[in-house]
Amino acid sequence: MYQEPKSLMTFLASLRHNVLCAAMLLLALPAFAQLDPLPSWNDGTSKRAIIDFVTATTTPGNASFVPPAERIAVFDNDGTLWAEQPLYFQALFAFDRIRALAPQHPEWKTQEPFASILKGDTEAALAGGEKALLQMVMATHAGMTTDEFDAIVTDWISTARHPITGKLFTQMVYQPMLEVLDYLRANEFKTFIVSGGGIDFMRPWTASIYGIPPEQVVGSSGKTKFEIRDGKPVLIKLPELNFIDDKDGKPVGIHQHIGRQPIIAFGNSDGDFQMLQWATTGSGKRLGLYVHHDDAKREWAYDRKSSVGKLDRGLDAAPKEGWVIISMKDDWRQIYPTTEIAPAS
Amino acid sequence: MYQEPKSLMTFLASLRHNVLCAAMLLLALPAFAQLDPLPSWNDGTSKRAIIDFVTATTTPGNASFVPPAERIAVFDNDGTLWAEQPLYFQALFAFDRIRALAPQHPEWKTQEPFASILKGDTEAALAGGEKALLQMVMATHAGMTTDEFDAIVTDWISTARHPITGKLFTQMVYQPMLEVLDYLRANEFKTFIVSGGGIDFMRPWTASIYGIPPEQVVGSSGKTKFEIRDGKPVLIKLPELNFIDDKDGKPVGIHQHIGRQPIIAFGNSDGDFQMLQWATTGSGKRLGLYVHHDDAKREWAYDRKSSVGKLDRGLDAAPKEGWVIISMKDDWRQIYPTTEIAPAS
Repeated sequence: MYQEPKSLMTFLASLRHNVLCAAMLLLALPAFAQLDPLPSWNDGTSKRAIIDFVTATTTPGNASFVPPAERIAVFDNDGTLWAEQPLYFQALFAFDRIRALAPQHPEWKTQEPFASILKGDTEAALAGGEKALLQMVMATHAGMTTDEFDAIVTDWISTARHPITGKLFTQMVYQPMLEVLDYLRANEFKTFIVSGGGIDFMRPWTASIYGIPPEQVVGSSGKTKFEIRDGKPVLIKLPELNFIDDKDGKPVGIHQHIGRQPIIAFGNSDGDFQMLQWATTGSGKRLGLYVHHDDAKREWAYDRKSSVGKLDRGLDAAPKEGWVIISMKDDWRQIYPTTEIAPAS
Repeated sequence: MYQEPKSLMTFLASLRHNVLCAAMLLLALPAFAQLDPLPSWNDGTSKRAIIDFVTATTTPGNASFVPPAERIAVFDNDGTLWAEQPLYFQALFAFDRIRALAPQHPEWKTQEPFASILKGDTEAALAGGEKALLQMVMATHAGMTTDEFDAIVTDWISTARHPITGKLFTQMVYQPMLEVLDYLRANEFKTFIVSGGGIDFMRPWTASIYGIPPEQVVGSSGKTKFEIRDGKPVLIKLPELNFIDDKDGKPVGIHQHIGRQPIIAFGNSDGDFQMLQWATTGSGKRLGLYVHHDDAKREWAYDRKSSVGKLDRGLDAAPKEGWVIISMKDDWRQIYPTTEIAPAS
């Protein structure tokens, strides 16, 4: 068919323009893919270990390739995803609750450990050790419905401030770890929290802060009881221990909730030791990592002798086990997020 | 610019052709979307209730719209996703294991309920009630690692046959329910099993049969213990009850594992009553459904007086609660899948 030359040239010019645009877009794609997935991490062995692990397990044809369904990643919370000094944040929550509930409990004025908390002497209150702490948790985490507790936590986490930094507690999550969570999920890993902390204390805010939904949070728990109240079914939180998700309990909790072994695990204390053992044993490529709190300037420096987040056995075992020790001082360009992230209710 | 008329006409003709093609494609899309998502369901109130619920909760702008993260669907297993007659399939598994383990347990020859099983008299063995059943479960589901038990279940489920139908047990899943699972997931629901059955008995095959991964299976469980054996960490299954995920226990198990209320729940017995209560209470649109075994020809007919899958209180409550009673006889065009589906190991 006859085609007018000039019109054809115009058409071809336009076609060439479109093709060029498309080609430039295609050329740009690999550049996007190569954007640094962990910008708050300094280059070094820790960052390289994470990226090498993810690359090897997610590249089709790689000998270490793992199908998406089996890409299970577990994270301790206190000291691994957010700070834990001077005391586990959940303990600070319990103290605040004791102060709030005191008018309904006149007996606490003389009853330890409550009396010490009300006098502002947390050290004396904690002198009673684990038993005292458990007593305070039971008094403040039970005797209400699960929905009521959820609302109390949501209110506290949105308003309470850290006694030293003055930040919201959710501002004291670790920016480099948020990037690891995103990076793993972008590579079809399913991310779980496996914490010694209370499961009902974490679930109200982990989705908005970490992108981890309630059903992917494993933690310690009290027993609950199903009841009909005013014609409506409710779950009552009982002052009775159900499960301690710490140390030996972490692999047990992982089995109970997830039902398969993780292939990558992040912890920061000896409470995570068995979780790292469990995640790094078995066929295929696996990775265990410890966040080491060695940055006294920007955060806190503590390990072998700390009462909170003690890391002793883990430091000795890491080289033998091939576990990575992440230095907060050297590996992390930044500790906390610079932009405000607040929990969505 | 000068445009040669004939060429223009040709161009326009070609453009019109392209536009028509695109339009036809667009017109065809709603037709695709309207393909029946539940082909094994006869038209009727049950099918309509499911489709209306999914449409209302997933259509943006609808007053009942629910964000994807909150689209939690729970399913009982025995009698809801697969058959449960003449006895829960897990009990048949336990009997097979007693026969397989008998050579290592000479004492079972005279010890009830084992002696009766070995003589082939399951009725006598079950005369001991729940205590006898629990005894048999403990003897066959403990004393090995979780990996070993997984392998035993995988082997059994791939080979054992139903005593009456001669089918693989995984061939006795309900085709209409497989379609519901797929339909819900296609609409961004997260599907969970919440069963009185053993969590470790279900997990090895639920992903390949139902498309439900291990981490979305909630069930009854025994305690496990973390140990180092021959230098390797293992989890040992102990002959000790951990949790019974039945009746009152179902909302407790849902809270423990999922951490939020489902908005749709399928059951078939009074053991699911509290789960349906829990799922159908609260704000927003919710749906509870009972599979009613009323098809003596193609499956089994039983309800109020059955020792397995008793449905009595639920039948009475359903009309008041607005729960849907699914009639297997009238609502289901087909019971079992026609194509072979076998568990992938």
